[in-house]
Amino acid sequence: MKPFTVRFERGRGALLDTLEANGSDRMTRFAFTVEFDGRPFMGWQRQAHGPSVQQALEDAIHAITGEQAVIHAAGRTDAGVHGLAMHAHADIEKPITPFRLMEAMNARLRPQPVAIMGCEIVPGDWHARFSCTGRSYVYRIANRRAPLTFESGLVWRVIQPLDAAAMQEAAQLLVGRHDFTTFRSAHCQAESPLKSLDRLDVERDGDRIAIHAEARSFLHHQVRSMVGCLALVGMGRWTVEDMRAARDAKDRAALGLNAPPDGLYFVRARYPG
Amino acid sequence: MKPFTVRFERGRGALLDTLEANGSDRMTRFAFTVEFDGRPFMGWQRQAHGPSVQQALEDAIHAITGEQAVIHAAGRTDAGVHGLAMHAHADIEKPITPFRLMEAMNARLRPQPVAIMGCEIVPGDWHARFSCTGRSYVYRIANRRAPLTFESGLVWRVIQPLDAAAMQEAAQLLVGRHDFTTFRSAHCQAESPLKSLDRLDVERDGDRIAIHAEARSFLHHQVRSMVGCLALVGMGRWTVEDMRAARDAKDRAALGLNAPPDGLYFVRARYPG
Repeated sequence: MKPFTVRFERGRGALLDTLEANGSDRMTRFAFTVEFDGRPFMGWQRQAHGPSVQQALEDAIHAITGEQAVIHAAGRTDAGVHGLAMHAHADIEKPITPFRLMEAMNARLRPQPVAIMGCEIVPGDWHARFSCTGRSYVYRIANRRAPLTFESGLVWRVIQPLDAAAMQEAAQLLVGRHDFTTFRSAHCQAESPLKSLDRLDVERDGDRIAIHAEARSFLHHQVRSMVGCLALVGMGRWTVEDMRAARDAKDRAALGLNAPPDGLYFVRARYPG
Repeated sequence: MKPFTVRFERGRGALLDTLEANGSDRMTRFAFTVEFDGRPFMGWQRQAHGPSVQQALEDAIHAITGEQAVIHAAGRTDAGVHGLAMHAHADIEKPITPFRLMEAMNARLRPQPVAIMGCEIVPGDWHARFSCTGRSYVYRIANRRAPLTFESGLVWRVIQPLDAAAMQEAAQLLVGRHDFTTFRSAHCQAESPLKSLDRLDVERDGDRIAIHAEARSFLHHQVRSMVGCLALVGMGRWTVEDMRAARDAKDRAALGLNAPPDGLYFVRARYPG
């Protein structure tokens, strides 16, 4: 990919004027809102040996533009984790409006379960990952005995009755600034295990439990690890004090359970302004 | 299957006492609540040339009991139509508790997307189809431009913006006792096209539209045909008066559109008492 001059265009008219005036030696930065079902993917990030959401998107852009654009995302989800509104961006040279790019990408992405829900032009210094100031996830549990039908791979089925009130109480011990080493994958590449968790709420609706997590950023496996321990509290196998002890141990060995990827959804990313 | 004497047992203890006292020449009627994802099935009813929910259930019972039990259901859904709480029954000779039968069936049904959500013993004159006094369906529409990801085959995607208020107004023209010939499949086996529709409500929640239908019974394709015409009203291609004219035509040729099976769910059946 050749070096590019970033354009700071916001309006469609201005963009087209610029593209016409400057020809093809200009890159435009497009931001995408992406919904994806993580079941068939090895994760968001491009992998050598299996399908990824990143590759699906980059292949679609290549088919449309002939360009080898690189997609950058607000977060990198693991295999089997889903996205409701993942934000991502790519720099594209071909003159095309956001609407036509979105439509062409959706046509090319079929039949893969990835959809471009929104597309817009952003300033060249806007970065889906580095500009992001907040990320939210939801973890969905089906608290039922019967096997899953519609949602196999889309929720975590927990057979044991879960006490959502006890889970909510334990969750509040994790909110705030803590050393989350206990809840961090051995493969986590973050510089520090210190993170500020802004929200961790457990809500029950019938046989469904949703756990909402919000922070500026998360460690690798942090949400799944927190959810796994909350489930132990819900089952009565851990007390709320056991959760406090696990947190304070700052030791991965103190982790009770890592929840499966099935129930995890990247909900949205927040950006300034 | 040999002739059987039906037992009128309600309690588990009484059942086991009876089974022990009478041996294996007694049948017990079990009622099931069944959840199923209709995507892989040719419909509820057993077919010669493809998988059906009925066959999945009968095969599971056969594997557990060695018996060729026949499953009777509150309704027979078409290919691709789903069930949230379909009620069904079967007569079984083998001494087994409802809980153990449910567990064994769920184990045998895997990996098919069919789950027994409840199982109980009912009187021998209780019939899932003939005792049923009310049936409810919901039809789910995703009113969005982007292709479906999680819910391909589980909702009807309609790209054109739908006016749910106009749809609701048109829907009320169908509530009550009418000749529903316009909304009836050519293959419908009902004796009369006269039906009483108790409820037809259109509710929007974001980009989702749910259409709730309730009646004692429905004609073949009635819900899908009503929904198809409501969608035409929602798109502005039909006026509310066009819906009235279609109803009054009592002619299948007046049907505007038959909605696809994807969005249709049998919600529940009602029984006296």
